[in-house]
Amino acid sequence: MCDAILKAGERLDDLERCGLKIIQNPEKFCFGMDAVLLSGFAVVKECEIAIDLGTGTGILPILLSAKTRGQHFTGLEIQPESADMARRSVEYNKLSERIRIVEGDIRQAVSLFGASVFDVVTTNPPYMPYGHGLANPDMPKAIARHEIKCTLEDVVQASAKLLKPGGRFYMVHRPFRLTEIIQVLTKYRLEPKRIKFVHPYSDKEPSMVLFECTRGGKPMVKVEAPLIIYTKSGVYSPEIRDIYGY
Amino acid sequence: MCDAILKAGERLDDLERCGLKIIQNPEKFCFGMDAVLLSGFAVVKECEIAIDLGTGTGILPILLSAKTRGQHFTGLEIQPESADMARRSVEYNKLSERIRIVEGDIRQAVSLFGASVFDVVTTNPPYMPYGHGLANPDMPKAIARHEIKCTLEDVVQASAKLLKPGGRFYMVHRPFRLTEIIQVLTKYRLEPKRIKFVHPYSDKEPSMVLFECTRGGKPMVKVEAPLIIYTKSGVYSPEIRDIYGY
Repeated sequence: MCDAILKAGERLDDLERCGLKIIQNPEKFCFGMDAVLLSGFAVVKECEIAIDLGTGTGILPILLSAKTRGQHFTGLEIQPESADMARRSVEYNKLSERIRIVEGDIRQAVSLFGASVFDVVTTNPPYMPYGHGLANPDMPKAIARHEIKCTLEDVVQASAKLLKPGGRFYMVHRPFRLTEIIQVLTKYRLEPKRIKFVHPYSDKEPSMVLFECTRGGKPMVKVEAPLIIYTKSGVYSPEIRDIYGY
Repeated sequence: MCDAILKAGERLDDLERCGLKIIQNPEKFCFGMDAVLLSGFAVVKECEIAIDLGTGTGILPILLSAKTRGQHFTGLEIQPESADMARRSVEYNKLSERIRIVEGDIRQAVSLFGASVFDVVTTNPPYMPYGHGLANPDMPKAIARHEIKCTLEDVVQASAKLLKPGGRFYMVHRPFRLTEIIQVLTKYRLEPKRIKFVHPYSDKEPSMVLFECTRGGKPMVKVEAPLIIYTKSGVYSPEIRDIYGY
């Protein structure tokens, strides 16, 4: 059964949650810890509908369908191969009623889906500016990591339009771009309400940062307790083990 | 000798560093840990001249004169009684050649000192917006804690003008205002370069945040390892003990 749904170079990985599996091609791009942490940080309530911008192989909709009681999840992905893998993973997991995968451009998202239609937007966008140590801009990994197909501002602008007033935006990004992120978020009236830094160890600088913003919210933010990945070398902290579902 | 320099209600507190002492009136306002942490975070190099905006009883210039090789420190304070205590503390510590205390308004700082004259600005401004649980707006403690005499924007605007191009701005503030702080800093081209959150315990949310900005710097920030105050109840962490000089 597994082999029939896999194309050359692909593998079926166990998500260790509710028996879910995901199709990935390690030559192209595999999801990272950032996506998993975002799935643990994002809140999707019963009856809410959510969209993941730049969904890759669909890791966020698939995890959020298991972790939350959200009604429906859309994953938008510009790369045809990734969107195809995501679609087959949704089918394999028998999630077609709760998740749809759409191949398309974030910059066209509002014309694809309409304005003010989602309760929640999630995104794990490319972290690196275009050209920042970029060797092969056509490669799937490069497109996932660098702002080749969309910039931070493209993602935030689309999110602000897609969200209903009061809707929530969840993003994982890199701390070195904190200033620019906050400027762009507030430019489009996505007001940060929760910020959580993720540190490899408790005495190290953060390697990731998680945001929850509210469309049109008031300016008061809660910087949360840090999320620590390792208690000691190679040993995940209890919080990380909980997010991964171990 | 001590009694002669003290007025009614005042006391002389030991700073436990280089024999320095400071005059304070516990009925009015005493410096807090935030000022001490800022003195440990700020960098003042040899030959540099620095100004502290809203210096209170002069804690920052006095500590920085001992902790750094900075050439000269100015403390600007709007409250006459605090400025008077600061001036007497400077004299008591025989620091009159390196520190001057000026009574005046931050909003008039540029006309008092000129534009683009300082290498470093430090500030521990009022954290709370005007009216936020404010009972007695004339009280010294209220003026030190609430934006009665100056707003965050007043402080940042004055700092940007006082600093030489490339000069450095150091501020301690509260995390709940992070979004607004970053907006105001970048509005006046004080680009955040280092941000450090201060947490009471390693698994708690931060209670303070320290900023280093560069006038006209490029947008790339380093969020540093967290500064933890207590390792366990009542026991200061090694980093805090080091900053206090214990």
